[in-house]
Amino acid sequence: MNTLQQRLNIIAELYFRMGGTQAVICPGSRNAPLVVAFVRHPRIHCIPVSDERSAGFIGLGMAQQSKKPVALICTSGTAVLNFYPAICEAFYQNIPLVVITADRPAELIDQWDGQAIRQEGVFKNHILQELTLDPDGEMEGPMLELLEAGIQQNLPVHINIRLREPFYPGPGERYTYREERIRIRPASLLPVHYSLNDIYDINALMDQIRESITPEKKVKLLVILGFGHCTSDAMNAVDKAQQQLNFPILADLLSNYHETNVIRNYDFILDQSQDSECLQPELLISIGGAVLSKNLKRFISKYKPLQHIHVQAYGHIGNPFQSLSAVLRTAPELFFEALAKIEIDATAYYDLWKEKEERISTLEPMLGLPFCELKVAARVLASIPAESNLQLANSMPVRYPMLLGIDPTIKINSNRGTSGIDGCSSTAVGAAFISGKLTTLLTGDIAFFYDVNAYWNRLHLPHLRIIILNNGGGGIFRLIEGPSSLPELEIYFENLHHRTALNIAKDFDFHYWKAADDQELEAALENFYEDSDRPKILEVFTNRYINQRAYKSFREQVLNITTAHN
Amino acid sequence: MNTLQQRLNIIAELYFRMGGTQAVICPGSRNAPLVVAFVRHPRIHCIPVSDERSAGFIGLGMAQQSKKPVALICTSGTAVLNFYPAICEAFYQNIPLVVITADRPAELIDQWDGQAIRQEGVFKNHILQELTLDPDGEMEGPMLELLEAGIQQNLPVHINIRLREPFYPGPGERYTYREERIRIRPASLLPVHYSLNDIYDINALMDQIRESITPEKKVKLLVILGFGHCTSDAMNAVDKAQQQLNFPILADLLSNYHETNVIRNYDFILDQSQDSECLQPELLISIGGAVLSKNLKRFISKYKPLQHIHVQAYGHIGNPFQSLSAVLRTAPELFFEALAKIEIDATAYYDLWKEKEERISTLEPMLGLPFCELKVAARVLASIPAESNLQLANSMPVRYPMLLGIDPTIKINSNRGTSGIDGCSSTAVGAAFISGKLTTLLTGDIAFFYDVNAYWNRLHLPHLRIIILNNGGGGIFRLIEGPSSLPELEIYFENLHHRTALNIAKDFDFHYWKAADDQELEAALENFYEDSDRPKILEVFTNRYINQRAYKSFREQVLNITTAHN
Repeated sequence: MNTLQQRLNIIAELYFRMGGTQAVICPGSRNAPLVVAFVRHPRIHCIPVSDERSAGFIGLGMAQQSKKPVALICTSGTAVLNFYPAICEAFYQNIPLVVITADRPAELIDQWDGQAIRQEGVFKNHILQELTLDPDGEMEGPMLELLEAGIQQNLPVHINIRLREPFYPGPGERYTYREERIRIRPASLLPVHYSLNDIYDINALMDQIRESITPEKKVKLLVILGFGHCTSDAMNAVDKAQQQLNFPILADLLSNYHETNVIRNYDFILDQSQDSECLQPELLISIGGAVLSKNLKRFISKYKPLQHIHVQAYGHIGNPFQSLSAVLRTAPELFFEALAKIEIDATAYYDLWKEKEERISTLEPMLGLPFCELKVAARVLASIPAESNLQLANSMPVRYPMLLGIDPTIKINSNRGTSGIDGCSSTAVGAAFISGKLTTLLTGDIAFFYDVNAYWNRLHLPHLRIIILNNGGGGIFRLIEGPSSLPELEIYFENLHHRTALNIAKDFDFHYWKAADDQELEAALENFYEDSDRPKILEVFTNRYINQRAYKSFREQVLNITTAHN
Repeated sequence: MNTLQQRLNIIAELYFRMGGTQAVICPGSRNAPLVVAFVRHPRIHCIPVSDERSAGFIGLGMAQQSKKPVALICTSGTAVLNFYPAICEAFYQNIPLVVITADRPAELIDQWDGQAIRQEGVFKNHILQELTLDPDGEMEGPMLELLEAGIQQNLPVHINIRLREPFYPGPGERYTYREERIRIRPASLLPVHYSLNDIYDINALMDQIRESITPEKKVKLLVILGFGHCTSDAMNAVDKAQQQLNFPILADLLSNYHETNVIRNYDFILDQSQDSECLQPELLISIGGAVLSKNLKRFISKYKPLQHIHVQAYGHIGNPFQSLSAVLRTAPELFFEALAKIEIDATAYYDLWKEKEERISTLEPMLGLPFCELKVAARVLASIPAESNLQLANSMPVRYPMLLGIDPTIKINSNRGTSGIDGCSSTAVGAAFISGKLTTLLTGDIAFFYDVNAYWNRLHLPHLRIIILNNGGGGIFRLIEGPSSLPELEIYFENLHHRTALNIAKDFDFHYWKAADDQELEAALENFYEDSDRPKILEVFTNRYINQRAYKSFREQVLNITTAHN
């Protein structure tokens, strides 16, 4: 083993020692010694993927499921830049991607050498830390520090390695690795506290809450669970505290919190209703990431709580309602365990929410609708088997389960860190691969065609199901106010097309069904979730004009109920 | 017209006034007012493209051909990042892309708002200048300055615009634009001089050259033309100077300099030959960008000239041979006109090159080769009609014309700024669209599948011809030393596949032929360049093992001739 290779093997070794066992490998020449170092490591599993953009999102999907770091490896040049969309999504979704890129020696940058660009700092805006290494120099210390920080804080890191020829090992070289593991304490268990308002620990915060409570102990206490990041410990603590204090919980679908004590239809309840002022919280506790519901965002932004405490151990914290008063850097379960011990009674406030929820339950939005995307979405969501995985592409698909409901045992994910459509399919592929579980991707046509290279790889995914809602373009623009009345709608917003996924299914040897009416849809769904030797695609065609009318009538129904009874 | 829209129209207006008439539009909500501002401008032509990565390269291909700026417009979020590969290529290829991205208001960044990322500075490493604008503030002055800089220096610029709702104009709003044009003096006509060696103007440099010449006037003067950027004025001046001073010219194929006085086979002449020391230049003049030939790079790097002057008016200058002694910032024609007046006689040196070139002409590398990629490449290159456009994808296709020769009337382009495979098809699409000329794309299978979204748009391109050299994977890795002997070759370097372009051709309604032997190839080529109502694909399948053997035998022939006779 030559010295360069020996030193590059350290990178694979350290990655494994810090808990990494999966790598997505993008072929190239400059990165050859890195590729070989990872591929020959006996306990790192490698997947080759040619399109770096897709590779990045496949890695993201794997890390999203496994809650473990995934390495992305590519050659120098624009290959590196193609990782960027996935890195940015990981940054806002708190996912520890370990991006390892081959680079040219410093003296060749900007000297017109092939595939030599300015890679240092190229992801600076959306990466926790980066490191440019020269394999001749000290690597172990800085790399360990970088990996530890990324894994602890669940954020992407970038290791850029300047390599000189020769890139390839000789034939028959024996590779050796040190394999001892290092245990990293996740940041959520670290005693890190921090706040916006000079309250530096959890006890002081609890004292402050106690002091602010009136003698009757009645508090309009609201808990919001945003997407992702909540451990089952945190969810259990929330559930227990709720049983003590009887507060309403608004849980984003992507929080995957589905206890019976949640207010399910908050998005409808808050939909343009005139008198939601009575629901204004006094104390708002939030955990997890952003929420999908525009109505919820609008409501809290308008009727701000007296105090809003956000609890999150690590990663970036946003202020989506512009209402934050304190941030507590700790594990949410610690906070809710302490909260449960305070004498608070939120029952009266909870009852207000429940009463509104009951009225919404009279809604029968599908009644009388023709075959349209909304109805199709309701039908396919209902067909997804219990306990399976669901990946929702951005734009309309991610919104349908919120509007239409879904079996709470289904585990939902979506790229809501940056809400792009660019990698939804690849993320689903990565998730299906690493989980080995039945995984459904619900996607629109634009997101599907955009990320078609998601399926160009060697992964065997018989348990992947892809449902494409094909309305011949960017259908969301026809459903929202503004673009729907512009003369530019069809060409510059919807970007209408006549494509179908049929030939793509042939290309990748997937099973394919299409449906354009209720009967075809029922027929296709009949065996869709039966075992298969390869992925299945169900493409459902709807008419954009009918979709537009149906969505309007649906919205009107919701509006009638909320404004009439509120 | 609302005030926001009025102010955004200024952006379209200024773009047009600075010479921009083409825009590639990527659909989105946040960028809606920008889209409308450009689409409604009476003299800017807009193309909608859904995949931003492809859109970026389509714009690049358009600007590469038209030598004019092209605007890229997209919404906020990761959409922006998908432009990055094309921007980076434009940066190293000196192409004035004007990147216009919608952004969120500053207070929403990092606050978990949808599609809100840190867009400021995101392209910093590979952009001339950037500007984040608030439509409420002063825009005109800074924007004019930015556009002028980018267009003068032929480099990409980034305008990032923070937008607040409402994004959409009301129905029937009348749009008005000011339309007077501003004439920008291109940088190549500016009297800017700069040098590494304290020679601040062209006359001083000429004096220095004169002084260094011995009384016999004999100088080993070599001229190298790198890729791109040379105007016909510059080429004429080179040609004239050559006729005066009789120096050898080594012209990269992508320089599109094809006068009869060039040394055509320099790559072969310099191929590992033992005694090329006698060809060492004393004075080296280079213009244009990098050169493709590894042998030429190796030769100059080893046998460095006494003086190496690079002449380039604007843009980045690399030092690919690590031999630069002076840089002159002026138009190459000014330099060569001055040089022609110096008494220099390079005849003896030129004769050395010509003698070697004559020996190479006995080479018959195709003799006895079976059906293989090399032979296919020679055949399809010979079939390309005179005066047409050829776009070469990176990896092997860009190398074949150098090895195999090509009709000098064919205008060749390739993305050699960063040499990525990520946007070769999209670049060809942009070039075919804007030139309206018969355009052939020669591509490998990996580059073709990687950038398949190149064809997902509304452009009508009956004059586009796509020739895919399909060897079932990244064939280059089998042809170069190093990876070809690794056990990881097939999976982690070639990333073997069994895909064909047949279904993609069906999807986009292109004509399709395939060929897997000489007869099929001849049959396919017979009508391939005849007029058509839509693009045509010719996919040629070769066997990777046969390709490997044939390439080896080809290289041995070259080596035999160069080492035996040198």
